Amino acid sequence: MDTIPKQTLMRLPNYYNFIKGLQNSGIRNISSPAIAKELNLNEVQVRKDLAAVSQIGGKPKMGFDIGELLNSLEHCLGYDNVNDAVLVGAGQLGRALLTYKGFETYGMRIIAAFDTDEGIIGTEISGKRVFPADSLFDLCPRLKVHIGIITVQDSCAQGVCDKLVKSGILAVWNFAPVHLTVPDHILVRNENMAVSLAVLSKHLKEKMISGDVPEGEV
Amino acid sequence: MDTIPKQTLMRLPNYYNFIKGLQNSGIRNISSPAIAKELNLNEVQVRKDLAAVSQIGGKPKMGFDIGELLNSLEHCLGYDNVNDAVLVGAGQLGRALLTYKGFETYGMRIIAAFDTDEGIIGTEISGKRVFPADSLFDLCPRLKVHIGIITVQDSCAQGVCDKLVKSGILAVWNFAPVHLTVPDHILVRNENMAVSLAVLSKHLKEKMISGDVPEGEV
Repeated sequence: MDTIPKQTLMRLPNYYNFIKGLQNSGIRNISSPAIAKELNLNEVQVRKDLAAVSQIGGKPKMGFDIGELLNSLEHCLGYDNVNDAVLVGAGQLGRALLTYKGFETYGMRIIAAFDTDEGIIGTEISGKRVFPADSLFDLCPRLKVHIGIITVQDSCAQGVCDKLVKSGILAVWNFAPVHLTVPDHILVRNENMAVSLAVLSKHLKEKMISGDVPEGEV
Repeated sequence: MDTIPKQTLMRLPNYYNFIKGLQNSGIRNISSPAIAKELNLNEVQVRKDLAAVSQIGGKPKMGFDIGELLNSLEHCLGYDNVNDAVLVGAGQLGRALLTYKGFETYGMRIIAAFDTDEGIIGTEISGKRVFPADSLFDLCPRLKVHIGIITVQDSCAQGVCDKLVKSGILAVWNFAPVHLTVPDHILVRNENMAVSLAVLSKHLKEKMISGDVPEGEV
């Protein structure tokens, strides 16, 4: 990632979407002039961009193998990384998640935490470093992480979400009981603890109303 | 509750189930001799038990109004309380839940915590007292609470669950990623944090495979 110019990096998702579309249409090869024409880019620039991404290169007349090019782009963009997450808000709930052992079973990892509290920035929680919130923009692309976990106060959640999106996060696991406004391409999973408990309570109530309670127990 | 003898209290769920069954069959009244006969109890005992529960009393020839009697029994048994919960395991996750503000919106309350750690027993977390785990048996019936939250280590979860059931808990919200064995009448809701994150990751992966990624963002 460090060796790819930032401007190139900014264009990679556009290449990726275009070429993915071709693959979905059953097309197997594409030349850099064709890509340049379609995306309204300079031919030399496209050649340079794709050379920075892939060692393979296009073959004369045939152009690029689309499957190979997509693999290279996915790797450069870190789109093959859907198992790492960062967490913003290292309060009680954040700490609980950072120390939770169950994630590994599913191959998931929280690799870093972010907070604005000077008192905990620089410390480690269960082996994970707490970084200043503003370093999200720098660290998320470098870590190629695409999942962000929000465990901040309700009032800060939207602001944190905006920062995560700006940092290249594509999926948000939100623990703040507020509605988050996100661009269309962002996945959001809301985890409302209160709803879980309320649902259990409702089921219990239904059970009691039906008279299905234990005998001889108090 | 304090004024009702323990032996009476032990019999109340049996009365409740029997009378609820009658109500479900459309019956409106029942006499204490009829209850005594059906439940194989002494008539005098049944009269005393029901007098301890309800101020209303049976009417000559008519017997008890079943709706009123059920209300009294429900209240005595605390079956009208499905909003309070106790929590066992005041570690990171337990603390996070005890300090979580969202429950109130849904009318839910965690009213007490239990732990075996001498260092935290007697302290308060977000205004909730931490009691020794062994006081569950005494406190749950006294607090008329029927929901128990398990936030202990995996290896202790089944033991804690057994204690909760013995204490009269009817619904368990389990955060330990283990399968709990419970009697048929106990509701269990498992909250596996890792599964939630893994599902989000899976959706993200599917989205990436379909080529639906943001343009011009890294």
